[in-house]
Amino acid sequence: MSLKEIGEFGLIKRITRGGLIRKSGVIKAIGDDAAVFRIDPGEVILATTDLLVERIHFLRDRISGRDLGHKSLAVNLSDIAAMGGTAREAFISIGIPDDCGIDYIEDFYDGMRVLAAEHEVNLLGGDTTGSKKDLIINLLVTGSAKEGEILYRRGAQPGDLIFSTGFLGDSRAGLYLIVNSIEYEDEKMQALVNAHNRPKAYLREGRFLAQQPGVHAAIDTSDGLTSDLGHIMEESGVGVRIHAEKIPISGNLYAFCSGYKFDPLSCAISGGEDYTLLCTVSPERADKVALDYRKRFKHPLYALGEITDTKRMEIIRADGRIETIRASGWDHFHQEE
Amino acid sequence: MSLKEIGEFGLIKRITRGGLIRKSGVIKAIGDDAAVFRIDPGEVILATTDLLVERIHFLRDRISGRDLGHKSLAVNLSDIAAMGGTAREAFISIGIPDDCGIDYIEDFYDGMRVLAAEHEVNLLGGDTTGSKKDLIINLLVTGSAKEGEILYRRGAQPGDLIFSTGFLGDSRAGLYLIVNSIEYEDEKMQALVNAHNRPKAYLREGRFLAQQPGVHAAIDTSDGLTSDLGHIMEESGVGVRIHAEKIPISGNLYAFCSGYKFDPLSCAISGGEDYTLLCTVSPERADKVALDYRKRFKHPLYALGEITDTKRMEIIRADGRIETIRASGWDHFHQEE
Repeated sequence: MSLKEIGEFGLIKRITRGGLIRKSGVIKAIGDDAAVFRIDPGEVILATTDLLVERIHFLRDRISGRDLGHKSLAVNLSDIAAMGGTAREAFISIGIPDDCGIDYIEDFYDGMRVLAAEHEVNLLGGDTTGSKKDLIINLLVTGSAKEGEILYRRGAQPGDLIFSTGFLGDSRAGLYLIVNSIEYEDEKMQALVNAHNRPKAYLREGRFLAQQPGVHAAIDTSDGLTSDLGHIMEESGVGVRIHAEKIPISGNLYAFCSGYKFDPLSCAISGGEDYTLLCTVSPERADKVALDYRKRFKHPLYALGEITDTKRMEIIRADGRIETIRASGWDHFHQEE
Repeated sequence: MSLKEIGEFGLIKRITRGGLIRKSGVIKAIGDDAAVFRIDPGEVILATTDLLVERIHFLRDRISGRDLGHKSLAVNLSDIAAMGGTAREAFISIGIPDDCGIDYIEDFYDGMRVLAAEHEVNLLGGDTTGSKKDLIINLLVTGSAKEGEILYRRGAQPGDLIFSTGFLGDSRAGLYLIVNSIEYEDEKMQALVNAHNRPKAYLREGRFLAQQPGVHAAIDTSDGLTSDLGHIMEESGVGVRIHAEKIPISGNLYAFCSGYKFDPLSCAISGGEDYTLLCTVSPERADKVALDYRKRFKHPLYALGEITDTKRMEIIRADGRIETIRASGWDHFHQEE
């Protein structure tokens, strides 16, 4: 069935079913000029938004509707997670080209709905429209947090240890497999593709970290390790030292790099789109936070460096050499150069 | 200067200046993973979003950056107005193709900023990215309202009078002049183009209406008079009767229609994008509301019909004939047919 046959309002009816996942506090969801909701008194509202454009952020023929739905929501949840918040409401705008079937769009919403249900996020509304060529997706997600329990980029202090909640570089390797249409049967390669197409949203982990004394700052790895740590550096007025041999690199990424002649460290440092959380923790509290985190979530917090007072970003190589590096990562206007 | 030269973060620095227009309640604006703000206790949050795609909603070579900025914000403010709310925070996502200069983007933000300042709306953040061909804009605007002072589409009651806060059809005529590259020196034609490119946001009017006893329902005219009244009909479970000769049509539209052989009534009924407010008011309160409105805003509320219990939409022609009409208007997936 085509979109022209069922029309805008027909599409809205199909895609909005089952979107009201957490009813409490929602006064009007979809079907008026605006959604109406309230949050608990004493909490502040967080809001983040991401625009995903076909041929820039994804290739429609290389990602399923479900995975695209998952990813579109996950990248926004990741921003709420990096603030230590609880995700609440999602608003989805979608621009649909003629050659995109309704099945794909319904799968897209299904993919969002599954992840939304996992984190009790409502799909509250949005806008649907046509597009000449590219599928266009914009999500805005609101969250809530107690004012004293928010993790800003600006809080890092010299001496803090820097942690990541997961492996870095997997998403970059997955992207390579996707863009080059590489066929694989290896589960390891599938895991890398999944890291790119179905990133985990570390919401529970972010909330946990925000509640621990000594956790000073956080950001998610969207542009790449050095680029994202660069934001913490700039906002906090500090420096960063990364230990090359401590950067968490998965066995899957090592396997990929040995097969396709890539440097695992480069993938991990500037790959981007891993959507792990990076946080900085005071040295006195770091051990306890890492231990409690591991007990709670059954996976480690990876220490990969520390905050310094130099205002430079440095990396210590395995042989002890210290290099100053430039915060670089994914810049959406430079990607084709 | 091109976007590739200054990069994403350079662009963000340029376009975010001066966006924090109302500081109260805003804890973190731009520059972290999410914006952080609070609203007054006892109020609920409204949220609305609109996606504007080049070649679907606008032609970049026919609208200035300033006007596009104005319009992108105005269409969202209009949704908050139609709920009777106070607009608060705006989040802007923008996908920029290579051939779009920075001047255009800066003008776009200037256009938004002027309208935002007029209504004390903060431009709080968003996402900037590239696009292969089309300029893509998504805005989400939040608002606030007292829970008892919200105008839903569902509140209309049989007997209510239907009002519009302004003329209908002007925007459609303006669109015709724009799309056909018609040159004009006539101020009347310029006014029609302005109606399309720089729609008024009836925020103060919407708030006023929401506070008047007897005002039962409201919507803004985005898709067209009959399509938008159709939403009120459906949500309220009522019928609508429109008096053809009462539909507010401007002298400018009459002049256009006589010159270009259009039917003013058709333009007004199904044109869309006028962004006036339509509201329904109990017959006992209608005169007082209309009088007080006129005193306050120095322009009339135009009565154009009434709510019935028929569940049909009817139009009474000037000669007394009653026709049943189908709610039709602008459907973004059908526009090329």
